[in-house]
Amino acid sequence: MRTRAAVALEAGKPLEVMEVNLEGPKAGEVMIEIKATGICHTDEFTRSGADPEGLFPAILGHEGAGVVVEVGPGVTSVKVGDHVIPLYTPECRQCASCLSGKTNLCTAIRATQGQGLMPDGTSRFSMLDGTPIHHYMGCSTFSNYTVLPEIAVAKVREDAPFDKICYIGCGVTTGIGAVINTAKVEIGAKAVVFGLGGIGLNVIQGLRLAGADMIIGVDLNNDKKPMAEHFGMTHFINPKEIEGSVVQEIVNMTKTPFDQIGGADYSFDATGNTKVMRDALECTHRGWGQSVIIGVAAAGAEISTRPFQLVTGRVWKGTAFGGARGRTDVPKIVDWYMDGKIEIDPMITHTMPLDDINKGFDLMHSGESIRSVVLY
Amino acid sequence: MRTRAAVALEAGKPLEVMEVNLEGPKAGEVMIEIKATGICHTDEFTRSGADPEGLFPAILGHEGAGVVVEVGPGVTSVKVGDHVIPLYTPECRQCASCLSGKTNLCTAIRATQGQGLMPDGTSRFSMLDGTPIHHYMGCSTFSNYTVLPEIAVAKVREDAPFDKICYIGCGVTTGIGAVINTAKVEIGAKAVVFGLGGIGLNVIQGLRLAGADMIIGVDLNNDKKPMAEHFGMTHFINPKEIEGSVVQEIVNMTKTPFDQIGGADYSFDATGNTKVMRDALECTHRGWGQSVIIGVAAAGAEISTRPFQLVTGRVWKGTAFGGARGRTDVPKIVDWYMDGKIEIDPMITHTMPLDDINKGFDLMHSGESIRSVVLY
Ligand SMILES: [Zn+2]
Ligand SMILES: [Zn+2]
Ligand SMILES: [Zn+2]
Ligand SMILES: [Zn+2]
Repeated sequence: MRTRAAVALEAGKPLEVMEVNLEGPKAGEVMIEIKATGICHTDEFTRSGADPEGLFPAILGHEGAGVVVEVGPGVTSVKVGDHVIPLYTPECRQCASCLSGKTNLCTAIRATQGQGLMPDGTSRFSMLDGTPIHHYMGCSTFSNYTVLPEIAVAKVREDAPFDKICYIGCGVTTGIGAVINTAKVEIGAKAVVFGLGGIGLNVIQGLRLAGADMIIGVDLNNDKKPMAEHFGMTHFINPKEIEGSVVQEIVNMTKTPFDQIGGADYSFDATGNTKVMRDALECTHRGWGQSVIIGVAAAGAEISTRPFQLVTGRVWKGTAFGGARGRTDVPKIVDWYMDGKIEIDPMITHTMPLDDINKGFDLMHSGESIRSVVLY
Repeated sequence: MRTRAAVALEAGKPLEVMEVNLEGPKAGEVMIEIKATGICHTDEFTRSGADPEGLFPAILGHEGAGVVVEVGPGVTSVKVGDHVIPLYTPECRQCASCLSGKTNLCTAIRATQGQGLMPDGTSRFSMLDGTPIHHYMGCSTFSNYTVLPEIAVAKVREDAPFDKICYIGCGVTTGIGAVINTAKVEIGAKAVVFGLGGIGLNVIQGLRLAGADMIIGVDLNNDKKPMAEHFGMTHFINPKEIEGSVVQEIVNMTKTPFDQIGGADYSFDATGNTKVMRDALECTHRGWGQSVIIGVAAAGAEISTRPFQLVTGRVWKGTAFGGARGRTDVPKIVDWYMDGKIEIDPMITHTMPLDDINKGFDLMHSGESIRSVVLY
């Protein structure tokens, strides 16, 4: 069949909206009609050419929601008509990683997904002249119709609005999951969030959900403050507006009459800046502070610190997709949204048709949007 | 009173055995007759001048065992005649750190201990001409008699031999504790230990105690192999004798037919080399591998890695005194030694009188000793 899609033909070029060929689902695969998709920094990382593993031509997009329109042979977990969220981190429930119970990083289809292909080593997408087009993160939600392995779709309730829950396919789950799955923040904790973009806001609402006492946001842009406060931030630091270092500022803010050491119990980097990652580690509390890296760093960038920081009890970790097992946890997060436990609506600042998708990237660059969503 | 002690008069010079003045214990302090003390790399780090925070003159030594001979006013937890192990990491049970339940890094006397002083800000030691001598790590076990705060001594059973259990005051607890307190290794785990000196051997016996399946030792010196095997090492890698990188070697060794990703569940750096610390992190399993830094790095040295290593699920941590709460955990480890659950005797390779203490440092440099113990 044919479908409309925004195609990344070359690194650094705007996407081109065009008709492409889409083959039907093979064994274990499903075809999804995408109803809405967010535009994420990770898409831009690849589109711009900054991603050394980027492949072209490709159909980007990994933050969607839609409806199953066709299932391939052997598919048992979803059926035509089911509402689903595509998962760039699948959950096969059978590989060594899934069965470990210790990670969400399913490895069932990792090799082919990294090559922009379906598990059988081929692509379902091609140009009208027959040139194959790469899948992207196993999702390719910048196409109105796309094909995914059944292990890479989360079935969700049918009364949830596509234009909001698409964001659960990436940023919402990443931010909230970093708090509850990776850091396992407890009630009363003191936490710091570096970077108050979309991920940072979701970390903040995750911290509110977890019952944190202090939720300190750090950003160079004061305009980020009101929205962050709306989501639960209790204290704000603009590193440009303080005297000393941000690390010392946080240590001082978190001291109490009883605890004169100070430091955050948990910190989260949502900037992707490796220098900030270091600050995020070093502002945590001696003895037990944990710092979680969420942001994607520039290719080749490295984090550093003195080992003394770890020997004195700080823990450095990271998270991918918030440690969430997609098929198991994403439907729960959709429930939380529908039950009002978490908010998404204020974060979807712009919507547009597929034809205007490049405007979504422009809004990201200008910092005007938190999230732009394409509505098909 | 006067006591004999080995004094570090200047950085880089051999210790000088001499008579020194020792004041009796003040409130909350106890005087200990040291019966035996190990000579540790940390003593050498300071003696040599490599430690930027080293103070001179000082009485080094932090790995002792002895008998309480006098108690100051208000001391309630030990009495004259009790057998004790001095603790360079005290356990006051009242500070924010102790009460957190999340760290062993008691901060009750941290500031003065770092300045080489007792909690009241003065030293109990002085030269015969009256010049004050610094305490070291709050212990100064290279003196036949020494004074410590009561919160910095662990009371132990009286049938345990001083010349062996002195090692529990540092290396034994550090190595075993890194496994059981910091990493919390579970039965069946695959683990790697970098550096097969005294700490490494104790990590290995900690792993055996924890029921690890694979205990891989890494060292540049093949002579370390037999002793490491004696303590439980199951596989040995000499990085000079393999084709590829040690990381790839470990990943390959830990693959199974079911798990083709490979990687250690846990790794421990007992080298103090920051490049090795990076290998130790990167050889752990994607999704859940944990790497624990034990070794003390050179001043100013930094660890680095790509954040991708953490984002894909590896955890970087460190340990000090094996995460052990000294007064609570050290007596248990003494019991384990007396019950035969752990071994110490083969690690005490040399003993000597105080007059020959510099020979102990020579044996450390030549690599001949695992541990030299001074017997008073
Ligand atoms: Zn994303
Ligand atoms: Zn899996
Ligand atoms: Zn030591
Ligand atoms: Zn304490």
